[in-house]
Amino acid sequence: MVEPSIVTPSLRDQLDVVISTSGSLDFLEGWRPFLKNYHLIIVQEGDSPKTVKVPDGFDYELYNRTDAERILGPNARCITFKDSASRSFGFLVSKKKYIFTIDDDCLVAKDPLGKDIDALEQHFKNLLTPSTPTFFNTLYDPYREGVDFVRGYPFSWREGAPTAVSHGLSLSKPDGVASNQKNQRYVDAVITIPKGSLLSLNGTNLAFDKELVGPAMYFGVVREGQPAGFHDELWAGLCIKVICDHLGVGVKSGLPYVWHSKASNSFADVEKEKAVSWEKEVIPFFQQVVFPKEASTAQQCYLELSKQIKGKLSGVDPYFSKLSEAMATWIEAWGKLYAS
Amino acid sequence: MVEPSIVTPSLRDQLDVVISTSGSLDFLEGWRPFLKNYHLIIVQEGDSPKTVKVPDGFDYELYNRTDAERILGPNARCITFKDSASRSFGFLVSKKKYIFTIDDDCLVAKDPLGKDIDALEQHFKNLLTPSTPTFFNTLYDPYREGVDFVRGYPFSWREGAPTAVSHGLSLSKPDGVASNQKNQRYVDAVITIPKGSLLSLNGTNLAFDKELVGPAMYFGVVREGQPAGFHDELWAGLCIKVICDHLGVGVKSGLPYVWHSKASNSFADVEKEKAVSWEKEVIPFFQQVVFPKEASTAQQCYLELSKQIKGKLSGVDPYFSKLSEAMATWIEAWGKLYAS
Repeated sequence: MVEPSIVTPSLRDQLDVVISTSGSLDFLEGWRPFLKNYHLIIVQEGDSPKTVKVPDGFDYELYNRTDAERILGPNARCITFKDSASRSFGFLVSKKKYIFTIDDDCLVAKDPLGKDIDALEQHFKNLLTPSTPTFFNTLYDPYREGVDFVRGYPFSWREGAPTAVSHGLSLSKPDGVASNQKNQRYVDAVITIPKGSLLSLNGTNLAFDKELVGPAMYFGVVREGQPAGFHDELWAGLCIKVICDHLGVGVKSGLPYVWHSKASNSFADVEKEKAVSWEKEVIPFFQQVVFPKEASTAQQCYLELSKQIKGKLSGVDPYFSKLSEAMATWIEAWGKLYAS
Repeated sequence: MVEPSIVTPSLRDQLDVVISTSGSLDFLEGWRPFLKNYHLIIVQEGDSPKTVKVPDGFDYELYNRTDAERILGPNARCITFKDSASRSFGFLVSKKKYIFTIDDDCLVAKDPLGKDIDALEQHFKNLLTPSTPTFFNTLYDPYREGVDFVRGYPFSWREGAPTAVSHGLSLSKPDGVASNQKNQRYVDAVITIPKGSLLSLNGTNLAFDKELVGPAMYFGVVREGQPAGFHDELWAGLCIKVICDHLGVGVKSGLPYVWHSKASNSFADVEKEKAVSWEKEVIPFFQQVVFPKEASTAQQCYLELSKQIKGKLSGVDPYFSKLSEAMATWIEAWGKLYAS
């Protein structure tokens, strides 16, 4: 039985696919059946003139550092062009309600029955149904077809909260090398990360509602004096999660899977000891952060967060001072772009 | 490839299987391959003399209301003998470190490959490996074989916390009737319910570490004036979860599955409106409850919880006053039994 797709043309028009790349977009060929009708925003990493070749037939805009400087002026300094954190620029310039971002080394994954997974179909299912951040449903996403709330789940909590983030996972090939990124297990579940709980976000396969939380989805400035073991995706996840919790919107994690062909192994154990010194300050900061009641938008929350980080984490490592300034610049850029 | 069992004879001797029943224990036949070497504690529901027939070859103790009164004296009033909440008595009299409890209408479930699931093997895996209550691992239980922490997961948080509760799930037959208890999906995952998040516990297939949290695993007094929609398992889950959170120990949920042959449908929608009135007081109470730092054992926490419930929930419904008294009696019974 083939389930009818929930993705109508008008829904599809509300989403941009944001991809950052240092060169080849060959991976798009495999995605053609699923992405051909979407609009792509491609951000070229590095300082070169535009050299990215997009496979024929895709509808896209292509930006590089020069474009960012033209559009953002001096605020362009908050955008990293050295790696995939440059995708933040794509989030900023998109005019759509929803964003889907995917790494340029990801292929279409197969479900356990061998069928190609339409990642966006599942991301839309996640985003268009509520989350359950304030009470955990042990049968996982209760809004999924064929699932329900478990017996005893409080009736008054069954309306759930709007979903702001859909955090997809990835599968990769077993290669005999022990690694914390080599996941081979397909788990047929979507869960809401409960309120108050932090996660390490992965930007490989991620969708979000830009209207709800766009200003809080920022991958920061990277490779500029960051402490050992610091990870821009972890950082983005900490920021977005505490803001979602404050705003009363949900973060889901789980399906859909993509296939990660060459998972990097950037976190060697050798970094562990160095990371511990800042982690022990940074994680508790996020576990305890409180926003003023007046902060009622992602934009306000993110600016407030940048101030608290400046005040409380600058002493941990000078990098956090630099990062907090970049966060404030990001919000300034956001404000200027959407002022009118 | 057959994985060697982690359950050694000496580990098996540290666990009691607690079953409450109103009569037939025929279900044990199917469990024989898995339970034959365990000690069973059987609690007979109702007021009759002992009439329960245990299939040959099982090692067991059988208790009824008369035994409870002999052993606990007047404190026996905290034990319900009208339904499966009578299992609490079994938890109390067990001398073992670990308890596994299972409903007497549950059969052995099969995994997706058609293999019978050894529920206790999985419960031991859950209980003997740490939990991750303070930081969510998006690849689920990182201590499971073949799984790890996701990239970026803070190193300092990777030791985890001791696991106190292993909450197994159940599968049931599709019967065309819409019901919140008819789960047909096998999800190959174990997750830690994060600190600060509540769940609706199900006692169908549940294991816990009695040394860590035994006094907090109590199914209360039921069928005695409880408000519409009140559910003893939800209540037990709320109490045990806030106490686990305070003690810094973990609650896992997910695998193993059992097969629930006749899932009752006690929660009709008609109860929804009536439940809302007490839920709106009771759930926020548990979301906000704070224990004094001096409360460092499950016993102390549970007594403290009974006092707070008396103070804050008695006005919601007289049942909560009765329940708080039963909770205090339970702790008194516990104290007397383990005083020497």
